[in-house]
Amino acid sequence: MSQGLEGVVAAETALSMVDGERGELIIAGYSVEELAPNATFEETVQLLGVSPAGDREMPPIAHAVLRAAAKRNDDPMDALRAAAGLLVPDQLFAAFPTIVATYWRILHNQQPIAPRNELRHAANYLYMLSGEVPSAEHVRALETYLNTVVDHGLNASTFTARVITSTGSDLVSAIVGAVGALKGPLHGGAPGPALDMVFEIGDASRAEEVLRRKIEAGERLMGFGHRVYKVRDPRADVLAAAAERLLGGDPLYDLAKNVERTAIHLLEQYKPGRRLQTNVEFYTALLLHGLGLETPLFTPTFAISRVAGWIAHCLEQRRSNRLIRPQSVYVGPRGLHWQRRAGSQPAQSA
Amino acid sequence: MSQGLEGVVAAETALSMVDGERGELIIAGYSVEELAPNATFEETVQLLGVSPAGDREMPPIAHAVLRAAAKRNDDPMDALRAAAGLLVPDQLFAAFPTIVATYWRILHNQQPIAPRNELRHAANYLYMLSGEVPSAEHVRALETYLNTVVDHGLNASTFTARVITSTGSDLVSAIVGAVGALKGPLHGGAPGPALDMVFEIGDASRAEEVLRRKIEAGERLMGFGHRVYKVRDPRADVLAAAAERLLGGDPLYDLAKNVERTAIHLLEQYKPGRRLQTNVEFYTALLLHGLGLETPLFTPTFAISRVAGWIAHCLEQRRSNRLIRPQSVYVGPRGLHWQRRAGSQPAQSA
Repeated sequence: MSQGLEGVVAAETALSMVDGERGELIIAGYSVEELAPNATFEETVQLLGVSPAGDREMPPIAHAVLRAAAKRNDDPMDALRAAAGLLVPDQLFAAFPTIVATYWRILHNQQPIAPRNELRHAANYLYMLSGEVPSAEHVRALETYLNTVVDHGLNASTFTARVITSTGSDLVSAIVGAVGALKGPLHGGAPGPALDMVFEIGDASRAEEVLRRKIEAGERLMGFGHRVYKVRDPRADVLAAAAERLLGGDPLYDLAKNVERTAIHLLEQYKPGRRLQTNVEFYTALLLHGLGLETPLFTPTFAISRVAGWIAHCLEQRRSNRLIRPQSVYVGPRGLHWQRRAGSQPAQSA
Repeated sequence: MSQGLEGVVAAETALSMVDGERGELIIAGYSVEELAPNATFEETVQLLGVSPAGDREMPPIAHAVLRAAAKRNDDPMDALRAAAGLLVPDQLFAAFPTIVATYWRILHNQQPIAPRNELRHAANYLYMLSGEVPSAEHVRALETYLNTVVDHGLNASTFTARVITSTGSDLVSAIVGAVGALKGPLHGGAPGPALDMVFEIGDASRAEEVLRRKIEAGERLMGFGHRVYKVRDPRADVLAAAAERLLGGDPLYDLAKNVERTAIHLLEQYKPGRRLQTNVEFYTALLLHGLGLETPLFTPTFAISRVAGWIAHCLEQRRSNRLIRPQSVYVGPRGLHWQRRAGSQPAQSA
């Protein structure tokens, strides 16, 4: 039994390579350190064989769905999932930022802003959120983030997309399933809490005390530890450098560096041999916060990047498909005999 | 590498046991032969630990989504996926028939029919499709079908639901992903074509000639063969008996029996050792056709049953969760160096 499929190889891929022992990530042949800070997001997406073009405007019914979601105060990932299911395949990549930004503005009683096609993907996203064309520095920081997290082997959402595709189903179904998987706190849903922890600490002098108390209470430190990486997540380095460029001199950046050092030190002390290291979420939180994004936008922004990886994996799965269908072991009862209890002959009524 | 995860055990379950070598299916302790023809669907669902109660009415936004889907002439599974994502968790089971029947009637320019709570789940579904309260015989036939296909180990849609749940995501996300997987023709999307083949043959005297031509042309015979079953799918027997009760004396039933015998005979001859046997789809098609359902309703009706199995698996996954995250093998390039082509410095414009 391999309940989490640890170490089970479920696909060959030419899209990305994750070496968890060496702390290496290759995306379409390039190391993440070399690609992420230099390429535009459009360039990265094309390296994965995905077209960055497509209609950025949502269909009117998606607007209606977002308005209904806002009335229920739905999580932005639920709203993204619902609206993404109403897109046509060609606009899955192009329209994700429009959905996220539109929902965010509706949720805050602001008028949604239509996409501008002369802006690049990342710039247009920031523009639709704030109404202001962002600085080149902000665009570069966001593109570095989007490039960094665009693909990462058979993570749970990408695997979901491949399982759905393996049945012969369509691209929209696969992407909608992947959005639902990314939402989970054990996958994409944790960068918010990583930042909350830094804010909770507030001052470097309190870091050791607060972190020690959390570890001793059995709490998981958000932003540390990864299923695959046993050394420092290479994405954390790329994002830390980008965060330093964006936030250098800001006390929050110094505080985060301090919290990271203290956390690593305490985790080695309390959980020796577990090799818990900074993961991608820690500096994601810092970088996106530095770009002015509030924490509920972190996971949807992750989705705006990763959807390109999902699409690439679906196309790859189709090229040499085999239905993904594992086995289960039955641990329930056997040999029961069906006998309706006397007098309980079913009426039409349930 | 196990591309399709064949033989890889990914979960323990107390919900159902599939023994493909012996042709056995146990559902919550009962053999499918004993449970399916005798229990109401509500009783079966409760055996799986799922409540059959819940609001059968869709929220208004789901009606709007179905109307928009009908304008695009969307596949009923796409419409179901889109509307299911707008339900609250408590009504996922209860409202599936309402979505399917409402969409079907909108698609055919008929007024949707509101659910009637005094009818059982299966009876209410047939009522919402046709506007007539069905006969006890029809209700029994549909309940036998729904019971038969309610759960089946780690099939691709159930596995999808468990992968999504394993990230800590919510029930609606898991079910929406599963609907998308069930849609695929290699999973739930094939009972229509099985019936089409019987109609194409039309008369028993043509069965051998038509089937022989298909096999020689390399076509797959829809309704035969299964990843797991190497003997006759026990569900095919249960559904064949139910179809005989419903359709006994109808020439279509005799034709289907004849096509089945001929197909099995020819498959043994052309593909010796492959052990291709009648699967669940063959008699599903016959039974649902006998209930007056048109072929595009077959897969959505499958979903109306299987959603109970999905929910049960999600609850089971949560009780002893571990993130499902397999590995991939990288077969792409390495060591490329990023260099922007001269003169291609990115402008703001994409």
